[in-house]
Amino acid sequence: MLSVLLRAIAALALGTSLAGCAGGGAALRGTGDLGVVIERADGAVLVVENSTRSILGRIDGLGDLSHAHAVFSRDGRYAYVFGRDGGLSKLDLLTRRVAARVMQAGNSIGGAISQDGRLVVAQNYDPGGIKVFDAGSLELLADIPATHGDGTLRSKVVGLADAPGNRFVFALYDAGEIWIADLSQPRSPRITRFPGAGRQPYDGLVTPDGRHYLAGLFGEDGIAALDLWQPQPQLRRILSGYGRGEQRLPVFKMPHLRGWAVAGRRAYLPAVGRHEVLVVDTETWQEVGRIPVKGQPVFVMARPDGRQVWINFALPDNGWVQVFDTLGGKIVASLQPGRAVLHMEFTARGDEVWMSARDDDRVVIYDTAHLARVGEIAARSPSGIFFASRAARIGF
Amino acid sequence: MLSVLLRAIAALALGTSLAGCAGGGAALRGTGDLGVVIERADGAVLVVENSTRSILGRIDGLGDLSHAHAVFSRDGRYAYVFGRDGGLSKLDLLTRRVAARVMQAGNSIGGAISQDGRLVVAQNYDPGGIKVFDAGSLELLADIPATHGDGTLRSKVVGLADAPGNRFVFALYDAGEIWIADLSQPRSPRITRFPGAGRQPYDGLVTPDGRHYLAGLFGEDGIAALDLWQPQPQLRRILSGYGRGEQRLPVFKMPHLRGWAVAGRRAYLPAVGRHEVLVVDTETWQEVGRIPVKGQPVFVMARPDGRQVWINFALPDNGWVQVFDTLGGKIVASLQPGRAVLHMEFTARGDEVWMSARDDDRVVIYDTAHLARVGEIAARSPSGIFFASRAARIGF
Repeated sequence: MLSVLLRAIAALALGTSLAGCAGGGAALRGTGDLGVVIERADGAVLVVENSTRSILGRIDGLGDLSHAHAVFSRDGRYAYVFGRDGGLSKLDLLTRRVAARVMQAGNSIGGAISQDGRLVVAQNYDPGGIKVFDAGSLELLADIPATHGDGTLRSKVVGLADAPGNRFVFALYDAGEIWIADLSQPRSPRITRFPGAGRQPYDGLVTPDGRHYLAGLFGEDGIAALDLWQPQPQLRRILSGYGRGEQRLPVFKMPHLRGWAVAGRRAYLPAVGRHEVLVVDTETWQEVGRIPVKGQPVFVMARPDGRQVWINFALPDNGWVQVFDTLGGKIVASLQPGRAVLHMEFTARGDEVWMSARDDDRVVIYDTAHLARVGEIAARSPSGIFFASRAARIGF
Repeated sequence: MLSVLLRAIAALALGTSLAGCAGGGAALRGTGDLGVVIERADGAVLVVENSTRSILGRIDGLGDLSHAHAVFSRDGRYAYVFGRDGGLSKLDLLTRRVAARVMQAGNSIGGAISQDGRLVVAQNYDPGGIKVFDAGSLELLADIPATHGDGTLRSKVVGLADAPGNRFVFALYDAGEIWIADLSQPRSPRITRFPGAGRQPYDGLVTPDGRHYLAGLFGEDGIAALDLWQPQPQLRRILSGYGRGEQRLPVFKMPHLRGWAVAGRRAYLPAVGRHEVLVVDTETWQEVGRIPVKGQPVFVMARPDGRQVWINFALPDNGWVQVFDTLGGKIVASLQPGRAVLHMEFTARGDEVWMSARDDDRVVIYDTAHLARVGEIAARSPSGIFFASRAARIGF
């Protein structure tokens, strides 16, 4: 009799405890210093915290995470992870659980979140188009096929980026078009099409001020550009020398445009196939210099203050990272953080940078002021690193 | 016997529940969309949340909050509120409790937090100087008196701003000096003094890229400037026409420099005593234009993307707010959000702006895309509004 009563009370107490915590015992904490590290080979994500450089937990079962991308809810509590297999997972960073998950396509290549944080959008290769989800429930709000030609063809979508006004901009690889989707009424998207953007746009970005959308072209040289601040944006072609060039250089890995660095008035771009970083004046969009670097650059990323630009490389130089000083105008460090450095992520105010060294199974952390290694965390074949402070940024 | 046992078990259960929640039952939530509104007259702070525009709670007993300023912990959980009476309060936004509080001076004028989030620094009028605290415990780590003259005089400190590398920059009002304190070893501060900065510097700022420190002068025209990116910064005088001018115009309220807008290559500055906003080229630091506005500007603040600049005014025009379109180059709206608009704060990605209408006892919220009122919250004589997304920004 007494033991039954005790068990009942213990169960009640446990129930109270869980309900009171609203999260299975997870502790209260801020979310501004949280982040995720993609463990690509395992379909898992490490939840990390960058104030004391620690691992909070691991979330498994997320499918094919090759080329996975993550964006964050406005409050920083949830990460939305876009898997290559079309899986879209909403992860609760506080409880380390999957809050919601949908299989939304057969082949997907990332996504974005709206300025107001209410819409999550996935860009898909197959079926080609974008899908718009409610950020809370992952309910499908709009399905926008990337139709072209006679209306029966569908293009792969690439280069999706958010822009102010709950707009999203993306490129149609097979159609050579750029589209702007105005989702201020998410169930009634308004599409503006820009045909003739160029052959095979393969990636795109919005500048940190939300003004310029730029799409790189795989099928020809040059960059397609739209000034999103204009009431009627006009398609322009800039940097006509940007691309693989007439010699059709071997390209080991197409650089990521999303990593382009904009620091002050200048943008720093990974050259395609060349051991160079291009320097471009963002007022004229003219090339104003080239920086010789160690290999074919993949990510070219500015520290948040723009004082430094960090560069990683394609094979066979993917064990190197170089640091360019934008004030002094020269490379100030050539680092070897580990084997197969696939991605880099700065802390919000840029005091540290995290780099995934895939083949060393760790994330290596450097102090950016002294260019010194200050820590590491263990991770299984880490690739992308994404911090929740991205929630406060445009175009991330 | 049974009742004793039951009470013991109940107490144990309650203890487990509280410990598991680590916050007295406060619910788990992200902190990226939190903020505080200063209720100056009551020595209180409203804890707010800007995703659904709601009040989470109120924290009382914070002393004299006239001219109060707030900064945020790196994780976004805590707000550090600097009171005019020298009180420094660390507020837990999740539990809505005072986590720590010290009376650290007799008369204080704000503070800042270091790039790595470990140091909170207060700037004081009396006794003149800065004090450095551990952001976790509020333990005093360094006390730096603003001595000048024969070494017995102490100056009021103004214009404190954080800069990359755990440095802080501030001005000595009575001594006409600017100091840089390198706090990378917080218990052994290294001070670099710049004498001859100009008569009576009264406020200062660091540009969003952490590069330029600028101090306005009350006693003469012009701005004292330091380029913090240089290994050996040199004091410069720029904008020799900036100030009250030879006619000594009546100035109803000295504008806040901290609110200066830097958008793209241009900075927008409140003119002193004139119904104008000055436009300055940040590469040459030359004035390149003046915008006629409705009154004497107080805060001139850029929307995070730089597309718009919002301006409020001193008496008798403090019921107006004007919006300048940086692309079109003209004022696009003259709004009347309420009586005595003292401060404005943008959401992290700029979709909305919150404005305190002190004499209407409310905070009024506008959508920045449509310049339309979308909500309000009740607050008692609100003044400063500060969102936790500041934790991710330099110089805030």
